[in-house]
Order: sequence, then structure tokens, then C-alpha cells
Amino acid sequence: MDKRAIGVFDSGLGGLTAVRRLHALMPQENIIYFGDTGRVPYGTRGRDIITKYARQDVAFLRQFDLKSIIIACNTVSAIALDLLSKENDIPIIGTVEPACRRAMTMTQTGRVGVIGTAATIRSGAYEKYLHKKDGTLDLFTQACPLFVPLVENGRVHRGDVVIETVVKEYLTPLKDAGVDTLILGCTHYPLLEEVIGDFMGPDVTLIDSGAEAANLASTQFDPNEGTGTTQYFVSDDPQGFNQLAELFLQEKVDVGAELVDISRY
Amino acid sequence: MDKRAIGVFDSGLGGLTAVRRLHALMPQENIIYFGDTGRVPYGTRGRDIITKYARQDVAFLRQFDLKSIIIACNTVSAIALDLLSKENDIPIIGTVEPACRRAMTMTQTGRVGVIGTAATIRSGAYEKYLHKKDGTLDLFTQACPLFVPLVENGRVHRGDVVIETVVKEYLTPLKDAGVDTLILGCTHYPLLEEVIGDFMGPDVTLIDSGAEAANLASTQFDPNEGTGTTQYFVSDDPQGFNQLAELFLQEKVDVGAELVDISRY
Repeated sequence: MDKRAIGVFDSGLGGLTAVRRLHALMPQENIIYFGDTGRVPYGTRGRDIITKYARQDVAFLRQFDLKSIIIACNTVSAIALDLLSKENDIPIIGTVEPACRRAMTMTQTGRVGVIGTAATIRSGAYEKYLHKKDGTLDLFTQACPLFVPLVENGRVHRGDVVIETVVKEYLTPLKDAGVDTLILGCTHYPLLEEVIGDFMGPDVTLIDSGAEAANLASTQFDPNEGTGTTQYFVSDDPQGFNQLAELFLQEKVDVGAELVDISRY
Repeated sequence: MDKRAIGVFDSGLGGLTAVRRLHALMPQENIIYFGDTGRVPYGTRGRDIITKYARQDVAFLRQFDLKSIIIACNTVSAIALDLLSKENDIPIIGTVEPACRRAMTMTQTGRVGVIGTAATIRSGAYEKYLHKKDGTLDLFTQACPLFVPLVENGRVHRGDVVIETVVKEYLTPLKDAGVDTLILGCTHYPLLEEVIGDFMGPDVTLIDSGAEAANLASTQFDPNEGTGTTQYFVSDDPQGFNQLAELFLQEKVDVGAELVDISRY
């Protein structure tokens, strides 16, 4: 049994959807979470700066004694997983591979959709992984740049014409393509599960990429008998983070996030 | 005649609305523009980090021989103008004061609205300035956090239900309050002039804060007989900046932005 903590990071709040799954699967695991709220979002930025930010996020987390790090951010997973894995002597778990694996077991028709940030979709990481594993799959991708700001402004509810219009606009090509499985390739998107599910219909399976990364982590380590504490760190506005965290964790909790100067790492 | 250039900075693209006005008023002026595209947006962040970023932006610009700096960003103007003025030996021009001055000359009823980012509105900078100058004004403020991402995604056109819904939602309280003058307290918002104007009606005067800052600058310096060149620098994705710049400058132009590592300043 390895009592060291698991590190989790994201550009901001989205990674908390992975923490929620970790809490459910490994309640006694200690977790260190970093959200780069001072530089969020990542998904609109270029490769080099995303790589730079990701390295700093990992450098901060490596101050703690960790057994693994989960990149609970599809943008970083899509762009910098290989590099971060090479540079670190502990396992680094991204979202792309576990989300793809789940999609491959769920699809009946072989028609799979992937939605994500502009940087994630532009990277082609999902195509590369899926086509390497199964050349017969038909893959349909779509960048959804407005989803992150809409989620962060709480526009996640049925009946909100703003989110419903944007969902329809982005997802119509995937619906028309007849996908039966849709990878939510951004850890913010599970908050839109209801609205996306309504639009795509009950026959389309939605894959929560952050939760799948947590699932994978839970298979790699024996259950810990620790105290199950989670420490939260952010690079800006801990109070705002504390307020919004409930939305992502889906429980009333005082996360008590601490402020970090990430530019020092 | 002072041949030194004018520095202009913003969190990203919005400040180009001020550059456009500078070009019109002072066509022979040399301009150095910095857009912090690697850390945009500022308006959702906390005071300390906004101050830190603003100091770095100014430090970068001060490498050039400048006669003045225009903060073409209301969030920075609202939070850090006094500090930046103290720390620099050249005039620093913000957006708050010139926008307020124009609003005071335009309003007939004394009922003035201000819209801006969450950080700008939270700062209370517009109230402080206006109430100091004229205690009889009735001021109505409203944060519009979705306007920046919507503008950056090109959602600026009449008939787009997404922007029209959000405009109606944010501005209904100001319309109901009967303001006759509305300060667009964010340099992204002039791109929404049409949609905002449609909603508020023809009797409400819209004040473009970035343009007002440029107006003020043009009164402070004798016209230059320079070559009127503008150099553009950004902290991420120069190509994306070059593409979107046309939207803000409202002319077909290859801005040829150069990349800067702003974390070094």
C-alpha cells in the first residue's frame, strides 16, 4: 500500500469533476489539487504556452510526496502528456487514453464524437489515439470554445436559451453524423451533461473524460487507508474558487483553497 | 514636438479599439502595442494578480522610449492606474477618467449606466470618480462577464439569439433605471455597439471608453510628424491575434504581431 497522495491539476475548476470521482472510488486517498485560476483558460491558447504552464503546474505539485499525477485537463493531456511523462519519475495519467478506451467499449456503430476546447481539437490527440487502436472507427470532432465560459458563468441549466442554442450549434454536425458515443473531452463539460444529453438523445452515450481518468487511477493503486483529505491550491482568487467548487463537486463543502504564486515554479 | 512613441496595452485584443481611434486622430504617431494574450482575460481575476500582470505589461513597454502609456483596459485602469502612475515617470492614461468626463458632458438626466467586467464593477472605480466630480449623478452599474468571451468568439451580430439574450439579461436593469448615457467600460464592448444600441434605444448615448482614452491622449501631445508605424507584441499565439485584429481595427491589415515572454518582466 502506497500512502503517498495523488496530485491532480487543471487550468481551473473543471478538474474537480475528476476529484469527485476519485472521492467516490478511493475515499481514503489523500489528494493534492492545483487549479491554475490565475491563467485559466488553457484551451484558447497556443501549444508552447500550454506546455510551459503545464510544466509549472507539475513542478508545484512535485513539492509534495506523490505517487501519481492526474492531468484533469484535456487540453494539457492532448498536448503535453508525453513530455510530462518523460520528465517525471511517477506515473502521469491523462484524460485522452482512458476516455478513448471507454468509448471503444461503448460504441456499437463505431461512430464516435469528440468535443473539446479549440486547443484539444486542433491537437488531433483523440484521432491519433483512436485510429492507432482501431482503424475502423469513424471519428467526428468539434471544438466548443464557448462551453467553458458558459459553464463558469453557471449557464448549465435546461431551458436556458443561451446554452441550448450553443449546444445545438456545436453538436448538430455530430448528431447528423449519427455518432452513438460522445466523448466530453473537457472536464468542464460534465456540467452540461443534461443539456447535451437532451440534444443528442438517449441513444448516445456520453463519456466523462475526467471521471475516466479517475477510474484508471483507481485500478493502478491498492486502496489506501489514509485519512482521505484533499488539499486545494489555486493561483488566483481562492474565495471565488471555494464558491464555485460546490457546483463541480456536487456537494456542500468548504474546500479552503490556498493561494500559490505559480510563476515561481 | 515629442517624437517618442505612445505605448498601449490591454489583456488581449480589446485595446485595439483604442489604437483604431489613435490612428484616426494621430495618424503620424508611432505606437507600441502589447496584448497579454497568454493570460487574457483579466476581468475575471482578483486585484493582486491583475496588479502583478499590469506591472509586467508596463515593464515590457518601458523597454521602448515612450512619452506616454495608455491603459486600454478598463479592468487595469480601475484597479491599478494610481499605482502605475506613481511608479512611472511618464504620463499613464487610463480609461475611467476620460469615459466619465464624456458621460458627464453627454447626460441630460444625470442617470448614467456603467457596464464592465466583474473586476471593474467590483472595484467601484467608476462610482468613486463620478461621485467625486458630481455628487448629483445617479449611477447604475452592471458586470457583464459573458461579453468578452462572446465578442472573442465573434458573437457580435444582430439576430444572434445568444448575444441578444445575454445583452437583454444584463442591460434590462439599466434600461429600467432609465439611464440616458451608458459607459461601455471594457474595450471589447464597442464591438457590441450595434446590439447594445438596438436594445437600449436611440435616446441612450453609448460611451466608448477606449476611444475616449485615445481622445485624451490626442489633446496632451502636439501632433507628431513621424511615420505612423505601429508595432504589435503579444504573449501568446501571434497568428490568432493577427486574424482577430481586423475585427477590432475594422480594417484589413497584417499587424505582424511578435511573441513576448511576459513572465520575464
